[in-house]
Amino acid sequence: MRNPQLNDHGELRHLLSIEGLPRDIITHIMDTASSFLEVSDREVKKVPLLRGKSVFNLFFENSTRTRTTFEIAATRLSADVVNLDVRTSSTSKGESLLDTIDNLAAMHADMFVVRHAQSGAPYMIASHVGPDINVINAGDGRHAHPTQGLLDMYTIRHFKKDFSNLTVAVVGDILHSRVARSDIHALTTLGVPEVRAIGPLTLLPPGLEQMGVRVFTDLREGLKDVDVIMTLRLQNERMRGALLPSAQEFFKHYGLTAEKLALAKPDAIVMHPGPMNRGVEIESSVADGPQSVILKQVTFGIAVRMAVMSILAGGR
Amino acid sequence: MRNPQLNDHGELRHLLSIEGLPRDIITHIMDTASSFLEVSDREVKKVPLLRGKSVFNLFFENSTRTRTTFEIAATRLSADVVNLDVRTSSTSKGESLLDTIDNLAAMHADMFVVRHAQSGAPYMIASHVGPDINVINAGDGRHAHPTQGLLDMYTIRHFKKDFSNLTVAVVGDILHSRVARSDIHALTTLGVPEVRAIGPLTLLPPGLEQMGVRVFTDLREGLKDVDVIMTLRLQNERMRGALLPSAQEFFKHYGLTAEKLALAKPDAIVMHPGPMNRGVEIESSVADGPQSVILKQVTFGIAVRMAVMSILAGGR
Amino acid sequence: MRNPQLNDHGELRHLLSIEGLPRDIITHIMDTASSFLEVSDREVKKVPLLRGKSVFNLFFENSTRTRTTFEIAATRLSADVVNLDVRTSSTSKGESLLDTIDNLAAMHADMFVVRHAQSGAPYMIASHVGPDINVINAGDGRHAHPTQGLLDMYTIRHFKKDFSNLTVAVVGDILHSRVARSDIHALTTLGVPEVRAIGPLTLLPPGLEQMGVRVFTDLREGLKDVDVIMTLRLQNERMRGALLPSAQEFFKHYGLTAEKLALAKPDAIVMHPGPMNRGVEIESSVADGPQSVILKQVTFGIAVRMAVMSILAGGR
Repeated sequence: MRNPQLNDHGELRHLLSIEGLPRDIITHIMDTASSFLEVSDREVKKVPLLRGKSVFNLFFENSTRTRTTFEIAATRLSADVVNLDVRTSSTSKGESLLDTIDNLAAMHADMFVVRHAQSGAPYMIASHVGPDINVINAGDGRHAHPTQGLLDMYTIRHFKKDFSNLTVAVVGDILHSRVARSDIHALTTLGVPEVRAIGPLTLLPPGLEQMGVRVFTDLREGLKDVDVIMTLRLQNERMRGALLPSAQEFFKHYGLTAEKLALAKPDAIVMHPGPMNRGVEIESSVADGPQSVILKQVTFGIAVRMAVMSILAGGR
Repeated sequence: MRNPQLNDHGELRHLLSIEGLPRDIITHIMDTASSFLEVSDREVKKVPLLRGKSVFNLFFENSTRTRTTFEIAATRLSADVVNLDVRTSSTSKGESLLDTIDNLAAMHADMFVVRHAQSGAPYMIASHVGPDINVINAGDGRHAHPTQGLLDMYTIRHFKKDFSNLTVAVVGDILHSRVARSDIHALTTLGVPEVRAIGPLTLLPPGLEQMGVRVFTDLREGLKDVDVIMTLRLQNERMRGALLPSAQEFFKHYGLTAEKLALAKPDAIVMHPGPMNRGVEIESSVADGPQSVILKQVTFGIAVRMAVMSILAGGR
Repeated sequence: MRNPQLNDHGELRHLLSIEGLPRDIITHIMDTASSFLEVSDREVKKVPLLRGKSVFNLFFENSTRTRTTFEIAATRLSADVVNLDVRTSSTSKGESLLDTIDNLAAMHADMFVVRHAQSGAPYMIASHVGPDINVINAGDGRHAHPTQGLLDMYTIRHFKKDFSNLTVAVVGDILHSRVARSDIHALTTLGVPEVRAIGPLTLLPPGLEQMGVRVFTDLREGLKDVDVIMTLRLQNERMRGALLPSAQEFFKHYGLTAEKLALAKPDAIVMHPGPMNRGVEIESSVADGPQSVILKQVTFGIAVRMAVMSILAGGR
């Protein structure tokens, strides 16, 4: 089966998932992001790479933060951005998703940035659009959030230089987290020798071991000697059933405190995709402490999204 | 009485309705749109004609799709666009419509694109603003939707070249449709010899015959040998009373199927203003079939709106 | 204590309140605004002073009108503007205000325009951000609305030239009005010899006399021989308790009518911050009459906001 993310020359055509993304493409995105990092520091924070292109932010699920990062990235590339709050638009008038896509494509859209509560929606859109349109998955259901995975890899590379000797722990609600899925795929693709998943049994998906992940239910044990700790947001809004007793109970066992952080390597970095629940998955003193690189992730996220957009636009 | 859409030199000053619009102005808009069609195909989809102009999208009635088409058209002309969701703004604080307009005018607005549930609202605004501001009606009540009418004419001209030998059928809920009104006025102004209205008696407004329209209640009879079929959206949200039994019943009698389409000329084109109710006013196989020009309408719509905006801005 | 609005060289760094703003800075803003007034009259209404800068409109409280004025001002300075409807964003996911600010700062924001229902929120943000970010208070609780105060001063100076011989009356619901607070501070700073506050006892805050304000509960008495009448919006949405019997009752005693206006100087000007409640705090014939400068305030408001933004951006 063809990789729907690549064109016939093996170049990036859509960014849908880190699963199936070749290592050299991930590395190319990170290298390109490096060159964009400097743009956001300039007096005039703009380059004309996407001038006159129409980028549509199609958020079927609300996320002001993520939408903003894509809007800023596209604007700094000089694109014209149209934000569509799709929840209140034609789809509510009974129009199908693909009719909406066809209509926007007919307006000569160049790029769709799609967030959707349903896993696979960006794939469906990518397989439907013509050759002139690129699709970026900005989070679909529990499936994937590839730009978050890429910016996380960029952050790790920035601070640790080399992936080949790292121990990385992903901590928390892994079951509901598209971020965790994307991160684990990226880490294994980039050759991280030891990836750990730490969480309560009820929040650990099956099949982690087959992905090459070591599973821990004890936080102290799992954090021992790790280089990188990736904490996850406790997805309150995603948890329907009662998979865990309470946020307080969760914090007691899986919240990252200064005392538990001390079990990791002394130069371990602490990451979080945001928005944080302080006092639930992470203690404030750790979130704001010297080992936290959480705000660096945000800064790198703009550069990584600029890189993805410019590579997609240039690859045609 | 003076035509409120034209200035003293007979040039377009506001676009409020196709009723009363001279034939040569309609033709001028279509000719100008032709030249803009190519802009949306360029690498850099922008021309500087409206650079530094402030275009306000004033949508008192929600329509993400239509707002987007105007936003894209204005952006490709390099205008600065401000989207005002007027439902949640000052009007809800008890301010009158004309006070809102006066305030925006005082901010040196150049153009208002107005959608309003009340027929005539754009006229009221146009008669209120000073000579430096142009008003475009983006749909008012059941009255008019002139840019839709113009893009429909552009589409017909594109495929049929000449209006003077056509039979055109407008099918469906004509009573509630501002699109139908605008289309019928445009078709008769452009000299189409036979315009037909097809629908159930309860959805046909009085006075069609006086407008030179032939009325049919039988779809098969009405479609016979037509060149153009303009299907209309069944305005569920506009129908308060029970003017028709059900959507299923409607489809049975007035939905456009492949079998009924075969009654028209073999090269007849099928149009729809969107968003479509598939399986209500139109069958999917027809909507996606070789005679459908529905997505072409969307593409031409951007060029037509660019044409209207540039003519208005240039005419001062 | 250091003035949080000024840098070490006494230059404007944030605009948080007119209280504590030196007279020469207020004058400098007004002088700069004069030069921008002409920009909005040009064919191309843009100057490149903020090109490539990222301005974030952070409206924790809804105000389409005020947001629009800042959006237009920033756009005419060529900035990139991101509008964040913060009510529906991360804060609703439990994220703290300062975490939201940190995140946006990490995206290399240059300027935050903040409206918040809580007094002091913009101060908290200003004291939190790094040296590269400027904060503008666009209205906080009952506390301040400094750009409104500045545009009001600009308007008075435009029509009256000199502040040193004026009598200015502020009329209405002074208790709940951040506009009134900002205006009174500005008027006294600029050396207006007589500032009057006119309203029912229940809507007059304590401490006015200490600010050098003469208090009147009788409108006729208070309006006598004034040069400037600043009417205030009756803040229906802010009045929880029953501080006044009814809007009709209010109009009877404190609504500005033509007959009452006649008590002021013949060349007195009438101002209102908008949106107006016609027939409550002001009679329509006065609002639209020859002495009204209400729409001029709106026009000047764009120039004043451009001035504030360009001074802040230039002062780094």
